[in-house]
Amino acid sequence: MKPIIIKSVSEMIEVSRNIKTSIGFVPTMGFLHEGHLSLVKKAKQETETVIVSIYVNPSQFAPNEDLDKYPRSFERDIQLLAELDVDYVFFPENQEMYPEGYKTWITVEKISRILCGRSRPTHFRGVVTIVAKLMNTVNADYMFMGEKDFQQIVVLEQMIKDLNFKTRIVRCPLIREKDGLAMSSRNKYLSSQQRNDALCLYKSLLMAQEKFNEGFTGSAETIDWMNEFIESYNGVVDYTEIVDPNSLQTISNLHKGCRILVAVKIGKTRLIDNIEIV
Amino acid sequence: MKPIIIKSVSEMIEVSRNIKTSIGFVPTMGFLHEGHLSLVKKAKQETETVIVSIYVNPSQFAPNEDLDKYPRSFERDIQLLAELDVDYVFFPENQEMYPEGYKTWITVEKISRILCGRSRPTHFRGVVTIVAKLMNTVNADYMFMGEKDFQQIVVLEQMIKDLNFKTRIVRCPLIREKDGLAMSSRNKYLSSQQRNDALCLYKSLLMAQEKFNEGFTGSAETIDWMNEFIESYNGVVDYTEIVDPNSLQTISNLHKGCRILVAVKIGKTRLIDNIEIV
Repeated sequence: MKPIIIKSVSEMIEVSRNIKTSIGFVPTMGFLHEGHLSLVKKAKQETETVIVSIYVNPSQFAPNEDLDKYPRSFERDIQLLAELDVDYVFFPENQEMYPEGYKTWITVEKISRILCGRSRPTHFRGVVTIVAKLMNTVNADYMFMGEKDFQQIVVLEQMIKDLNFKTRIVRCPLIREKDGLAMSSRNKYLSSQQRNDALCLYKSLLMAQEKFNEGFTGSAETIDWMNEFIESYNGVVDYTEIVDPNSLQTISNLHKGCRILVAVKIGKTRLIDNIEIV
Repeated sequence: MKPIIIKSVSEMIEVSRNIKTSIGFVPTMGFLHEGHLSLVKKAKQETETVIVSIYVNPSQFAPNEDLDKYPRSFERDIQLLAELDVDYVFFPENQEMYPEGYKTWITVEKISRILCGRSRPTHFRGVVTIVAKLMNTVNADYMFMGEKDFQQIVVLEQMIKDLNFKTRIVRCPLIREKDGLAMSSRNKYLSSQQRNDALCLYKSLLMAQEKFNEGFTGSAETIDWMNEFIESYNGVVDYTEIVDPNSLQTISNLHKGCRILVAVKIGKTRLIDNIEIV
């Protein structure tokens, strides 16, 4: 059944406050792919009322980034969400979320300035602020997020814990295309040559896992191998880091349970990926 | 009846989430006076379950301010709250509110940097962050705040509106001693001579109202008169401002409904006061 579409903040608040069941929330920027849909399916399994937001949040894009060309497909998104029996879609305009005179920002220190935060210094401030707003607006009990955006989950969990929000994040696995490319709305930007080059992210991560299996555990040499591999595919490395999965601090030796994260530019398109070393 | 005292965040969250009535919340730093008690009485009238927090929040004090000597009187506070039939007192330690690894801050731009924010640049960041935390922790429907801290109310209302929190602020009137001094825990710092000098805040505000009644409406000359008066009482003016009560922007001419705010040092003690021009 087609979800009920709500565009007004005040209406969404009124509706969500009157829902007496558990509320599962999936925040998205639309242009939905199987990654998003896996979150929605999980939310349907775990909670009684499911709300999906579709909002391309300007405050998490820097002026030089791809806000204006970010892909959109609202009618198709609604069709996909209807097939999954989503209850509500919250689809606000910018002036609903950032009305004239808007002044409030939430920052999470330190872990917002590493990894993706180094090249995108205001990104997580925008993410954290909009997600707190959305959580309040939809009265979320559980929020379903994919580990594709691994740092985002860690930053949001920190914010939720620090500010004692009631919402709990349910971590869901990253979803890949058949050939291993991590699903992302930004994959649409890739030419067919770039689409092939983009495989270097996942392949470099698999290589690190193989080297680990063979007994190589030094982070520095693993990063060198990965970067060399990525560059051989025309990828421009933004970062390759091997970190503790809770603190996101870099570690000098790989171990089971650590996380490798990469950010790579393929042409003008910046892609990210990560795996847990097992 | 003596209120139930809760010191743990997780326990307070569990208790508050299970309260099915409306929740009225009065955040305080303890050392309660009639001003606080008027808020509690209002909360008792308007809501079914009343929670008072007693927490001297370190993040709203700058290093050179009076955190260490801020007066405390916990047993007496509990006695006073018992007489008013308060249901719960939330009384956390610092490590409950700011555990190791705490990283999250909420800022409200512009209106946090004027008036008190000019001499206390990090004050409102601390206030806004702790109040958001407390609101989440006690699951507040209504929060009762006194107009003594007029700028604080405006800043918190902005934060609540911007982030779509469910909590609504109920503004309550400033409460004065018989001779007009605004009630404040910091009045305890005053010597008997200073206690007399401190009357200059309210008297200067009354003078402005009288001059307004006589037809003088220029902000600049009103501020000059007030400052001269305050200085004649050994007060050191931090600011005297005449503002729009919603935007807190200074206005050049007084009108009914505008607000005059003063901050004055009497010895080492910084006091604030304000009135609405009627």
